[in-house]
Amino acid sequence: MPKLDVTLGVDIGGTNTAFGFIDKNGVCIIESSIPTNSFEPAEKLFDRLSKEIKEFYSKIKEEYNFIGIGIGAPNANYYKGTIEYPPNLKWGYVNVVEILQQYFDVPTAITNDANAAAIGEYEFGAAKGMKDFIVITLGTGLGSGIVANGELLYGADGFAGEIGHTIFDVNGRICGCGRKGCLETYASASGIKRTVFELLSNSLENSSLRDISFNDLTSKMISDSALAGDKIALEAFDFTGKVLGIKLADTVAHFSPQAIILFGGLALSGNLILEPTKKYFEENLLNIFKNKVKLLPSKLTNGNTAVLGASALIWNEIDKAAKKAAFQS
Amino acid sequence: MPKLDVTLGVDIGGTNTAFGFIDKNGVCIIESSIPTNSFEPAEKLFDRLSKEIKEFYSKIKEEYNFIGIGIGAPNANYYKGTIEYPPNLKWGYVNVVEILQQYFDVPTAITNDANAAAIGEYEFGAAKGMKDFIVITLGTGLGSGIVANGELLYGADGFAGEIGHTIFDVNGRICGCGRKGCLETYASASGIKRTVFELLSNSLENSSLRDISFNDLTSKMISDSALAGDKIALEAFDFTGKVLGIKLADTVAHFSPQAIILFGGLALSGNLILEPTKKYFEENLLNIFKNKVKLLPSKLTNGNTAVLGASALIWNEIDKAAKKAAFQS
Repeated sequence: MPKLDVTLGVDIGGTNTAFGFIDKNGVCIIESSIPTNSFEPAEKLFDRLSKEIKEFYSKIKEEYNFIGIGIGAPNANYYKGTIEYPPNLKWGYVNVVEILQQYFDVPTAITNDANAAAIGEYEFGAAKGMKDFIVITLGTGLGSGIVANGELLYGADGFAGEIGHTIFDVNGRICGCGRKGCLETYASASGIKRTVFELLSNSLENSSLRDISFNDLTSKMISDSALAGDKIALEAFDFTGKVLGIKLADTVAHFSPQAIILFGGLALSGNLILEPTKKYFEENLLNIFKNKVKLLPSKLTNGNTAVLGASALIWNEIDKAAKKAAFQS
Repeated sequence: MPKLDVTLGVDIGGTNTAFGFIDKNGVCIIESSIPTNSFEPAEKLFDRLSKEIKEFYSKIKEEYNFIGIGIGAPNANYYKGTIEYPPNLKWGYVNVVEILQQYFDVPTAITNDANAAAIGEYEFGAAKGMKDFIVITLGTGLGSGIVANGELLYGADGFAGEIGHTIFDVNGRICGCGRKGCLETYASASGIKRTVFELLSNSLENSSLRDISFNDLTSKMISDSALAGDKIALEAFDFTGKVLGIKLADTVAHFSPQAIILFGGLALSGNLILEPTKKYFEENLLNIFKNKVKLLPSKLTNGNTAVLGASALIWNEIDKAAKKAAFQS
């Protein structure tokens, strides 16, 4: 039997760094994770990580060829192969691709979490066969990965796709970025919490959410309350969908994509978030775009989606290189 | 002497259709225009136009090779080679590329006015050497041509780049598109007229603009009044720049371009519009984009800029085809 090709997907998070060997179809052969130990220098993490990877690869190397590494990480720069001043790690500026290539002699690429999610949907998920689509990641913040003309959009400096920091209301909520009214202060797991607290303050409606502190409240709790018919929770989803729908209509006016895909924590609320977003999205689209742009839930729902996305990044790079080589020969 | 290559640029407008033979450096060799006669079927225009073109080409054909046609037109679809239901013409759906190729056996391409302006800036103007930039055309409406990764962005259906129809204020001014508060209802030649009338209604300030009817008022008059120190006119430019600056900051968050270039009628007001736009643009940019994205005036200021842009489209296509051929051989 000839060996099958696998790539390694690595997701570097503030707490854990997960990795897995993923085949061409997006099937995870083997996966694990180690603590990131964010207080340590980056070199120590990659030294520990490389040892683990080698140990795991030794278990499958009779059957599989290890042909590339894809990495998803906060503040990653695809062009430079770096992670730059990540908010949850004390690393400063680290050339991750250079470090990992000292351990593994295979093509290696890095990108941020939202771009990895976008390439993941393209290779294995809801965006298969699409050339123009956008993935919106609804986590603590709102990230976005944009594919235009079949290519991830990086812009002049690698920082394209900051849709979370488009402005919904110039006089709106304070954002972590220092400005006011950014989309992610409304449409994200933390945004919907803020909306719940605004609604609790404005109304006299009874709600199970009145017993929970801001710090204890999670988007899962809001979701559960909404499913139980809690009016405040339902209104919070409606308002979140309204803000997201209005701003995504602007995004469509820029890109005219085939689809927008909702990914990540808050997207797990399913129709609770998808339906109001769709409603206000269609209402606010320019005529020529109405009923044309699909709003879809992620199809990367099995296993570690961040590791899958990271692996998809390098599968995509390897494919592009192969096509280029075929073109030149 | 070997002959030099020229392309033909054609700009189809509601009143006149202009054309010119343009060389590789953007120099116009010879140009003219004919009435569009918008009540006639499209075929008649292209028949008249072709005769004119042949006559003009006969004057230069000893020195020049005619190698392609680029067309700029409202509601043009690059993918299909068509003009579809143009607002100022009674044509319905017309395959312009097919018709013109019956008269001329050269590569022919069509795109909308704003995309032609973008390619014009890329080939001959302010965007030379840039891979990521956006041209904003400030005419009666607000158009946009977006270049990302070195390619004009068309999106899934050819309709990308409708930045004029991103929403500034969901409860704002009625737009021709049927919605409210679109950017072009504020930032365009007609938008600044509306702003002047809003300011005249709200304030008691003296202004030379109080003697002019809405239908008579032009953006040139507002410009002249502002230069003469008229407070209402100056405030109108400030407010126009504010709305434009805020919305362009959103555009940057999507694309991370090297530059945004202001083109067309209202942009001729120079610093009157450029300075307030720059000020509010920088104020509203996400930190990582501040002081990085240039806001530039068009450099297509000589001759018929629309014809230049249309010619640039086909020069660009010919270049791309040549590169592809070189790559394959």
